[in-house]
Amino acid sequence: MTGRLAILAGSGALPVALTAACPDALRVVFDGVAHALDPPTHAHRFERLGALFDWLRDQGVDRVVLAGAMARPRFDPAEFDAEMTRIAPQLMQAMQSGDDAVLRFIVALFEAQGFTVLGAAEILPDLTPPEGLLAGPAPHPGADADAMRGAEILARISPLDLGQACVVERGLCLGVETLQGTAFLLDVVARTPAQLRTPAGARGVLVKAPKQGQDLRVDMPAIGPDTAAQLARAGLDGAVIEAGRVMILDRARCIAAFDAAGLFLLARRM
Amino acid sequence: MTGRLAILAGSGALPVALTAACPDALRVVFDGVAHALDPPTHAHRFERLGALFDWLRDQGVDRVVLAGAMARPRFDPAEFDAEMTRIAPQLMQAMQSGDDAVLRFIVALFEAQGFTVLGAAEILPDLTPPEGLLAGPAPHPGADADAMRGAEILARISPLDLGQACVVERGLCLGVETLQGTAFLLDVVARTPAQLRTPAGARGVLVKAPKQGQDLRVDMPAIGPDTAAQLARAGLDGAVIEAGRVMILDRARCIAAFDAAGLFLLARRM
Repeated sequence: MTGRLAILAGSGALPVALTAACPDALRVVFDGVAHALDPPTHAHRFERLGALFDWLRDQGVDRVVLAGAMARPRFDPAEFDAEMTRIAPQLMQAMQSGDDAVLRFIVALFEAQGFTVLGAAEILPDLTPPEGLLAGPAPHPGADADAMRGAEILARISPLDLGQACVVERGLCLGVETLQGTAFLLDVVARTPAQLRTPAGARGVLVKAPKQGQDLRVDMPAIGPDTAAQLARAGLDGAVIEAGRVMILDRARCIAAFDAAGLFLLARRM
Repeated sequence: MTGRLAILAGSGALPVALTAACPDALRVVFDGVAHALDPPTHAHRFERLGALFDWLRDQGVDRVVLAGAMARPRFDPAEFDAEMTRIAPQLMQAMQSGDDAVLRFIVALFEAQGFTVLGAAEILPDLTPPEGLLAGPAPHPGADADAMRGAEILARISPLDLGQACVVERGLCLGVETLQGTAFLLDVVARTPAQLRTPAGARGVLVKAPKQGQDLRVDMPAIGPDTAAQLARAGLDGAVIEAGRVMILDRARCIAAFDAAGLFLLARRM
């Protein structure tokens, strides 16, 4: 017989959607991390990870899903339990190697404790749309070339663990996502001096795809309802996401926002 | 017998330094492009490139050096001469493939017309310092690891023709230069939310190196006197440039600015 599922929740709408789909799941949040769960089952401290593992087992949990955004936490080493003290050196090292390394390390920790780590998209397959135009007008003819150039850039930088998005306008790259995230990237594009932008006509696109070898269970790229307004401010024409491998959060609101802004949202093989 | 040298000048201090070193050279500027030459020998329009080639030959020029920054120019096709009309389709295509392609195309044009294209650093070897600490305090121990990570990032993105600089702080990349240039990149770093920066102690570094296969005669990366203030605003500890392959413009002022700001400037093999 299968054990219970625990949702380890960060901020945003995704943990809420998982809760709605899995009403019997335990809902774990972390001190100092924003969340939208009302109410969570249990609040926990990162410093006492060993106690969390014990508590999950006591509750009959054998599967966990990590969902939602968590800013890199600050730790108080005085509060570490034995397990956290044991893993802290490796965790600190992983934190200096980028998000990928941290997430891989955390997944391995849970697996070593006997838990199965699920991806949100395994529980909610509708999160990751297949190929097709999801919102807005048909992309302009240049958008396909820009999408391919963006896909090439993302594939090339993939081993560097920089980010999962870039912006391309008529073949020219206006920005590559680094640890500040996609909203910040789009703000950077919005700040680009006008004389460096395409003078008229077709504007650029946001291209978003996972890194190669990325663990999609815990770090699948996503767009959400706020993305449309950020694209509009950046003077872009739309977004191209990799089909089946990028999540659309709060899908109905997201698509309505793209439609309302006249921006296309295209899922595409890359 | 050797012919004359023509300095084809954009903005900034480099054309002025070349003029001082080569007082007999012709000084050509372009309508609509800022320059600091006083006075230039000749002002020209991009639209009449065929006429420029003829004029250079009439003056006995057989060598040219392209120096200084030129923003991507806007053209008035109604003013094109025959040569410009002939090359315009290829030039427009190159402009959609990035700066590298444009510069390669322009160099090839001058060479096809029989001119030798020199690099500013061939005329002024002091522009590109060899290995060593050029200004400021000795780099902190983590700076070397950050410099190597930056060099790895630049080498990896090199074939993409994105940019020649990145910022790394304790192993994490805070930004990759795209067409907006280094000052813009450092402004992006300055805007990074504080909770994503290293909490205390050693700060990050700007790493600058040419792209692999880049034509260093016409697109050698450079830092200048303004770089120090930009680094300070970005909360960084210094800059690491590739030894022998990055220019320091206005060297005395540049080094004084780094020293005054307490920032290191290190030339390093990469």
